Amino acid sequence: MNTSPPNSSGRGPIIPSQHVRSERLNRRLEVMAQYGANEKGGVNRQALSPEDLQAQLQMVRWAADLGLQPSIDPVGNLFLRFEGTDPWLAPVLTGSHLDSQPTGGRFDGVYGVLAALEAVEAIRNAGLRPRRAIEIVSWMNEEGSRFAPGMMGSRAYADPGSLSDILSVTDAGGVSVATALEAIHNGLREIPHRSLGGCPHAYIEAHIEQGPELERQNKTIGVVTGIQGKRTFRVALVGEAAHAGTSHRSERKDALMAAVRVIGALSQQFDDPDDVVKFTVGRLTVEPNAPSVVPNGVTFSIDLRHPDSKELTILGNLIAPVCEAHRGPCSVSVQELSNAMSLEFASELRNCIRSAAAQLEIAHLDILSAAGHDARYMNQVCASAMIFVPSHEGITHNEAEFTSLKDLVDGARVLADVLCDLAS
Amino acid sequence: MNTSPPNSSGRGPIIPSQHVRSERLNRRLEVMAQYGANEKGGVNRQALSPEDLQAQLQMVRWAADLGLQPSIDPVGNLFLRFEGTDPWLAPVLTGSHLDSQPTGGRFDGVYGVLAALEAVEAIRNAGLRPRRAIEIVSWMNEEGSRFAPGMMGSRAYADPGSLSDILSVTDAGGVSVATALEAIHNGLREIPHRSLGGCPHAYIEAHIEQGPELERQNKTIGVVTGIQGKRTFRVALVGEAAHAGTSHRSERKDALMAAVRVIGALSQQFDDPDDVVKFTVGRLTVEPNAPSVVPNGVTFSIDLRHPDSKELTILGNLIAPVCEAHRGPCSVSVQELSNAMSLEFASELRNCIRSAAAQLEIAHLDILSAAGHDARYMNQVCASAMIFVPSHEGITHNEAEFTSLKDLVDGARVLADVLCDLAS
Repeated sequence: MNTSPPNSSGRGPIIPSQHVRSERLNRRLEVMAQYGANEKGGVNRQALSPEDLQAQLQMVRWAADLGLQPSIDPVGNLFLRFEGTDPWLAPVLTGSHLDSQPTGGRFDGVYGVLAALEAVEAIRNAGLRPRRAIEIVSWMNEEGSRFAPGMMGSRAYADPGSLSDILSVTDAGGVSVATALEAIHNGLREIPHRSLGGCPHAYIEAHIEQGPELERQNKTIGVVTGIQGKRTFRVALVGEAAHAGTSHRSERKDALMAAVRVIGALSQQFDDPDDVVKFTVGRLTVEPNAPSVVPNGVTFSIDLRHPDSKELTILGNLIAPVCEAHRGPCSVSVQELSNAMSLEFASELRNCIRSAAAQLEIAHLDILSAAGHDARYMNQVCASAMIFVPSHEGITHNEAEFTSLKDLVDGARVLADVLCDLAS
Repeated sequence: MNTSPPNSSGRGPIIPSQHVRSERLNRRLEVMAQYGANEKGGVNRQALSPEDLQAQLQMVRWAADLGLQPSIDPVGNLFLRFEGTDPWLAPVLTGSHLDSQPTGGRFDGVYGVLAALEAVEAIRNAGLRPRRAIEIVSWMNEEGSRFAPGMMGSRAYADPGSLSDILSVTDAGGVSVATALEAIHNGLREIPHRSLGGCPHAYIEAHIEQGPELERQNKTIGVVTGIQGKRTFRVALVGEAAHAGTSHRSERKDALMAAVRVIGALSQQFDDPDDVVKFTVGRLTVEPNAPSVVPNGVTFSIDLRHPDSKELTILGNLIAPVCEAHRGPCSVSVQELSNAMSLEFASELRNCIRSAAAQLEIAHLDILSAAGHDARYMNQVCASAMIFVPSHEGITHNEAEFTSLKDLVDGARVLADVLCDLAS
C-alpha cells in the first residue's frame, strides 16, 4: 500500500481492506441467492434468463447507491465504473459472472462480482480515490450451460470478431443468444451502451477454488499461478440400427459397443499414476435409445486437461487414432471443439496478491486453477490474475457449494488492497 | 384338406387358398399404411393413438362387409368372428397387431391381421363354413414403444389378473393405458364388449420374419418352431458428480466410466464364437449429461436372448456378479424386468402348416423366431404356432421394411388352408 496517502488522523496509511464489511457482503450474497433460488438452497440462474436479468438489475441498483457509472456492451457484459482521478488512464478491471449452472451454488461467479463491489465500496468508504478508474464487470455466460460453450462475454471482449459466432449460438429450445440478449438489453435500456472490448491496465478476478486444496492445506487465499490447459472434443460413432433379437452380433454395427470400446481404450491410454491428466466423458447420447434396438449412433464429449501444454497437445492428439483403432465396423468422427493451452498469470500481479495477503497475515498458497475462468480470455488482453478462496470439500456446480463467510471476507480484503494498489 | 366337402362342380375338394386374392390383400395393406403414414413411406401408429383407433375402425368396416361379428375386450383387443356351424365349439384364433414402432414399416403386425382377414374371406368365398368359428384378433400394444413393455393385449388375454398392472402403465407424457383406452373404447362404442380371456382351440399368427434367413435360403414360408428366450434387465450405476477440471480421477466416482467397464466386461463375458447369444445394450442415459461434469448416474438396459432356456438362465445370472465385479467406487443395482424362457410351438400345428405349404408347393423351412410375438402369450393358453414370410434383408422396425406381394399372398394362402383345416 505504498501509494496510499496518510489518513487524516495521521495514524499511518489508509488500508481499504479495513473498510470491508462482513455483514454487507453476506447480505448481498443472500439477496443474489434469491434470483433463481431453488428448493435445495442453490440457484438456477442460467445466462440471459429472466433471473439473470434480475441479478444484473440488482447490481445496477447497488451501483447507483455508490455513485458508480453503469454501462453495458453488445454481448451483455455489465460494467460499473468507479471513476479515477485521471479518467484518461486505462482502468483496472475486476469481477466475474452472475450466471450459474442449472444446479448451481451460491458462490461460483457471484462471489467475484460481489467481492469486487465490496472492495470498491471499501476503497470509497476509506475516502480513497485512486488515479485509475476501477471497473466492476459481470461477464455474460461464463457457465455455458444454456448456451455452449461458456465464457462468451469475456471471449467477445477479448476478441470482438467472435461476436457474430456467439450471437448465432442457440439453446436447447432453439433460442439464439441474439434473441435472448434483446431481453437483457431491453431490461437494461436505461443504462448507457458501450462498445465491445477495451484495453484495461489489469484484470483481477476473485473466485471460489472449486477444488479441495486450500481447505486441505488450511490456507485462506490461493494466489492463482495460472489455468490448466483444456481441449474438448465431440466424438460421433455411426453404426446401423438392428433388431436386438434377430440380428447376429457378428453382423451388427453397434454404435454403443463401439463407444464402450473407444472410451475404455481412451481411459486406459490416459491412465496416469501421478493422477495429473484429467479425462472426462460427461455427455453421451444414444440413438434411437430403445431397449430392443441395436444403437445406430452414439455421440459423446471429451474434456481433457493437463497443466503442461506440451503434454496436453500430445495427449489430445492421441484421441483420433485411438477412436479409429477401436471403432470396429462403425464409422467415427472426432471434432475438436476448443483448444486452450495452459497459461500463467502475470508474475507482478501474483506478487501483488501475495504481498497483500502477507500484509494482512492471511495464510496463502500458490495454486493452479484446474477450472477455466473468464480470466483466461482477459489474459489475452492485459495482465491478469485470480484470487481463490476455499471451497468446502471442493464441491461445486452443486447446491452444496460452500465457503465460510470469514474466508469470503478475507478474499474481499485482499482484493480491496490489490485493486487500490493497482489503481493508484 | 381332408375335411373339405367336394365342391358343387364335382371337380375335387374346395381349397380356400384358391380364393386368396392378391389385389385385395395389397389394397388393404395400402389402406392400412395410410393410418399414421410418415413421409418415409412407413408408419407411426403407436398403441392406443388416434391413428391406431382409425386402423381398428377400418377393420370393423371390413368385417361388416363380410358379416363378421366384432367385439372388443377390456384391454382393447379387437375380435372379428366368422361364425362356425357349431357356435359352442372353441374357436380358432388368428391375427397379430396393428400398432407400430415410431419408425415402423408397413408389414410388421399388420400383415398378420390382414392375412387373417384375407384367409377368412377366402374360406367364405369358397362357400365353406367350418364347424368352429374363426376369430380374427388385433392385439393391443404388441410393440411396447409408447407403453412398455409390449404384448400387453395378449398378456392380459392369457392372464386376466395382469390387467390392473397394465392399466396403470404410463407413457412418456404421463398418460396411463387406462386413460388412453377410454378413447379407444369410446371410438368403438358401437361394437359389443366381451370379457377378457378365452379358451380357443388353437392360435395361428402370420408375421414377417424380421430376419434374413428365409430370403437367404430362398424359401417363402417359415414354419416357426418356437420363440427364442429373452431376459431383460435395467442396470443403474450411482456415483458422484464432480468438476471435470478440478476433481482427481483417483478420487472420482464416475458412473459413466463404471458403465463402460461393466458393459465391456459383459460383452466379453457373452462373447460367443457360434454367435448364438444375443446381448444388446439399446438404451443408456447419463446424469447430469453435461460435458464438464463427471457423471453421477448411468442407467442402461440389457436385452439378452438365447434359444436354449438353460443357457439363457446361466448367462442371465452372470449379469449381477459381473456388474458387481466392475462397478469400481460406484454402487450398482441390477433389476430383472422380464424373464421369458424359450418356447416350442405345438408340433401338430407345425405339421399342419408344413403340409399346407407342401400341398401348395411353396418352399418352406423350419425356423426359430428370434423376436418375441403375441404367440408367446397365446402359447400359454392353447396350441399355438406361427407362419413367417420373408423380410427383405431382415430389415424391420424401419420404414424400409419390405416383403414382396407374392410372398405375402403365399403366406395368406397357407394360413387360409391351415385355418380351414383346424376349424373343420
